[in-house]
Amino acid sequence: MAAVFSTALLDVYGNPSSTHRAGQLARQRLEEARRTLAETLRVSPAEMVITSGGTESNNLAILGLLRNGSGKPLHAVTLAIEHPAVLEPFRQLEHEGVAVSYVKSVAAVAAALRDDTALVSIMHANNETGEIQPLAEVATLVAERRANGQNIYFHSDGVQAFGKIPVDLASLGVDLYSLSAHKIFGPKGIGALFVRKNTLLQRIQFGGRHERERRPGTENVPAAMAFAKAAELAVGSQRDTVAALRDQFEAQLLNCLPDIQVNAGWAARLPNTSNILFRGVSAEALVIALDMRQMAVSTGAACSSGSLEPSHVLLAMGLTREEARSSIRFSFGRYNTPTEMAELVDAVVDSVNKLRQRASKEARLAG
Amino acid sequence: MAAVFSTALLDVYGNPSSTHRAGQLARQRLEEARRTLAETLRVSPAEMVITSGGTESNNLAILGLLRNGSGKPLHAVTLAIEHPAVLEPFRQLEHEGVAVSYVKSVAAVAAALRDDTALVSIMHANNETGEIQPLAEVATLVAERRANGQNIYFHSDGVQAFGKIPVDLASLGVDLYSLSAHKIFGPKGIGALFVRKNTLLQRIQFGGRHERERRPGTENVPAAMAFAKAAELAVGSQRDTVAALRDQFEAQLLNCLPDIQVNAGWAARLPNTSNILFRGVSAEALVIALDMRQMAVSTGAACSSGSLEPSHVLLAMGLTREEARSSIRFSFGRYNTPTEMAELVDAVVDSVNKLRQRASKEARLAG
Repeated sequence: MAAVFSTALLDVYGNPSSTHRAGQLARQRLEEARRTLAETLRVSPAEMVITSGGTESNNLAILGLLRNGSGKPLHAVTLAIEHPAVLEPFRQLEHEGVAVSYVKSVAAVAAALRDDTALVSIMHANNETGEIQPLAEVATLVAERRANGQNIYFHSDGVQAFGKIPVDLASLGVDLYSLSAHKIFGPKGIGALFVRKNTLLQRIQFGGRHERERRPGTENVPAAMAFAKAAELAVGSQRDTVAALRDQFEAQLLNCLPDIQVNAGWAARLPNTSNILFRGVSAEALVIALDMRQMAVSTGAACSSGSLEPSHVLLAMGLTREEARSSIRFSFGRYNTPTEMAELVDAVVDSVNKLRQRASKEARLAG
Repeated sequence: MAAVFSTALLDVYGNPSSTHRAGQLARQRLEEARRTLAETLRVSPAEMVITSGGTESNNLAILGLLRNGSGKPLHAVTLAIEHPAVLEPFRQLEHEGVAVSYVKSVAAVAAALRDDTALVSIMHANNETGEIQPLAEVATLVAERRANGQNIYFHSDGVQAFGKIPVDLASLGVDLYSLSAHKIFGPKGIGALFVRKNTLLQRIQFGGRHERERRPGTENVPAAMAFAKAAELAVGSQRDTVAALRDQFEAQLLNCLPDIQVNAGWAARLPNTSNILFRGVSAEALVIALDMRQMAVSTGAACSSGSLEPSHVLLAMGLTREEARSSIRFSFGRYNTPTEMAELVDAVVDSVNKLRQRASKEARLAG
C-alpha cells in the first residue's frame, strides 16, 4: 500500500478535472480506484463517494439525509454505543429540530421506529469492543416500512468492520455505508461513503462539481489509489489468522488471570478486537505500563483520549464507571505473530500483577 | 516534499489522539507542522485549523461564521469572481436566509456594507487571472465598522496567493484565511484555515474533539508534515524567478502575436499566472493542440472543466462570452526554465497560427 501511495504521489500529480494529459491520467486512476472499492463491496462505482475519511462520511450520510430542507419535522434512530462521528451529527440535528432516539441495542430499534422516522443509523461493528450488530434485522424493519410508502433510509458506520469481516453491500440492505482507509492499513485523510442509487442526499460542503456533485474539492487521487489497494489487500487477507491470534491471546490471558472479563465476549465480534476488564486495575496505568514495554494499546477510543470520562460504549453496555475505567482495548492485525501474542500475554499478566500488588500495598498503608 | 511525505507515511503511523508512544510521536509531528505553517504566516499555531483542503477551509470559514444559530438575519459581501468553493457556500446560505451581495470589485465593497453585514469574503488572488486584490483596503473598512461595535469578520481565500506572494497574516487584517497544500507542490487532500483568536466559528462537521473542536476526524499527520515542508520551500523560494519567466513568456508572445491581450495584465498579479485572450481562436482547441505537444495548460479553472459555460471570472471582468471562450490560463512554477518558456512560446504561436488558418479556411468554405 505504502509503495502504491509513494509512487502515485510522484507519478499521478495531475488534477483529475484538468483536460490535459496529466489530468486525464489522474482521472483514469481515480476511477480505477473507485471501481476497485466498489468491487470489494459488490456495488456500482457510481455509488461510491470519496471523502476525507470516516468522520466526513458519517457527517455526509447523516446531515446530508436529514437536512433535506423539507421543513417537515423528522425522526431518526441510532445506537447509544455509536462512534462520536455518528452521535455528534445527531446531537447537532437535535438543535436543528430533528428528534433522535438513542437505543441500547438493535433489539430496541423496532419499538423506536415512528411514521416520521427518516433515518436509522446502526454501526456495523463497535470500535471499542468489536461487537458486530445484526444489520440484516434492521434492514428488514426498514424495508417493511419502505414497502408501506415511508421515506426511510438505513445508514451503517462500517469504518470498523470493513476489511475485517466480509461486507457485501449488495445483500446487506443498507442505503449508506461509511468507510475509512486508515483502519485497514491505508493512509489517513481518505475515506468513502456508499450511497445507494436514488438516495436523496444533500451536500454538506459546497464548491466544484466533483464526485457527482456530492463532495466538492480537488480529488485526492494518490490517497484514493492507496485506499483501493489497502481494500484489496484487506479483503483478500486471511481473516482467520487474525481471529486465531486474538483467540490465542484471550485463552492464554484467561488461563493466567481467571478473574478478567472479555467485554462483549458473548457477542459476535470482529476478529481483531479484544476489550478486557481487569478488575481493580487502572486502565490508564496499564496502558502506560505496556507502553514502557513497547506495546501500544488503548483505553477505549483514541478520539476521546484526554477526556477523563469513562467509555460511553462500555457504560451503555451496562458496565459501572469503575469497570469501564478498568477496561482496555487490544487491536490485532494481520502483521502480528503468535510469538508477539505470547509476549503480550506475559507483559499484561506481569503488569496487572504488579499494579494489583501496588494497589493493595497502598490500601494497607492508607488503612 | 515528496520525500518528507513518503518517509512520514512509514514512520509516523500513529493516531495523534492515542496515548501510547506511536501516538505521541504523531502528535508531536503534527504540532511541529502546525507551528511551521503558523510561522510562515506570522500567526499563532493555536490559530491554525488543519482541514482536508481549500474547499473545506472556505466552507468552514463561511458556513461556520454565518450559521451561528442566532436566528438574526445576516448579510455578507463577496466578489463575483470568487472561486466556486466560496460562491457555492454563499449560494447555499442564501437558501438559509442570509442576504449576500456579490460585488464586481473591491472598490464596490464600501457601498455594499450594511449594519447587519457579518462577513466580508475577498479572495487574495484570483485563480484564473492571478489578479491580486487590495485586501488592506477592505481590512480598513471592516476595522472601522468593528470599532463602531459591529459584529463583522473578514475572510480571504488565500489558496492561490499563499506561497506565491508574501502573506503576513499578522499585518493583513483578515480574521480567516484559507490555504491548500497542493497549490504549492504539497499533497492533495490537506489544507488549513487560519482562524484569528476570539473568532466565533461554528463547526460544520461533528465528531471527536480534534483541532480544538473545530474540525473532527483523525488528523492526517503525514500530509500535514508534507504541507508544512511545502510551505517552507514555497516561502523560501525565489519568487522573482517565476515572475521573470512569466514576463519573458508574455513579452515574447506579444512580440509574435501583437493582437493578443493579457487579461488582468493591467492589475497587480501573482508572479506565476498568465491569462491570455487569443481573439478568433477556440481556447478548447488550443488546449488540445498544446497537450499534443506535452504542454499542460487550462481554459479557466480545472474545477469547472467539463462545463460548457465560459469562465464566470472573465465574464465578471467584462469580457464577452466569445472572448472568455478564447482565453487560456498558463501557470508557471519554480521548476520551469527559460528554455521551456521559449519552447512554449513557439508552440503557442505555431498552434494559434494553424488554428486561425484553419478557421479562416472553414469560413471561406462556408461562405
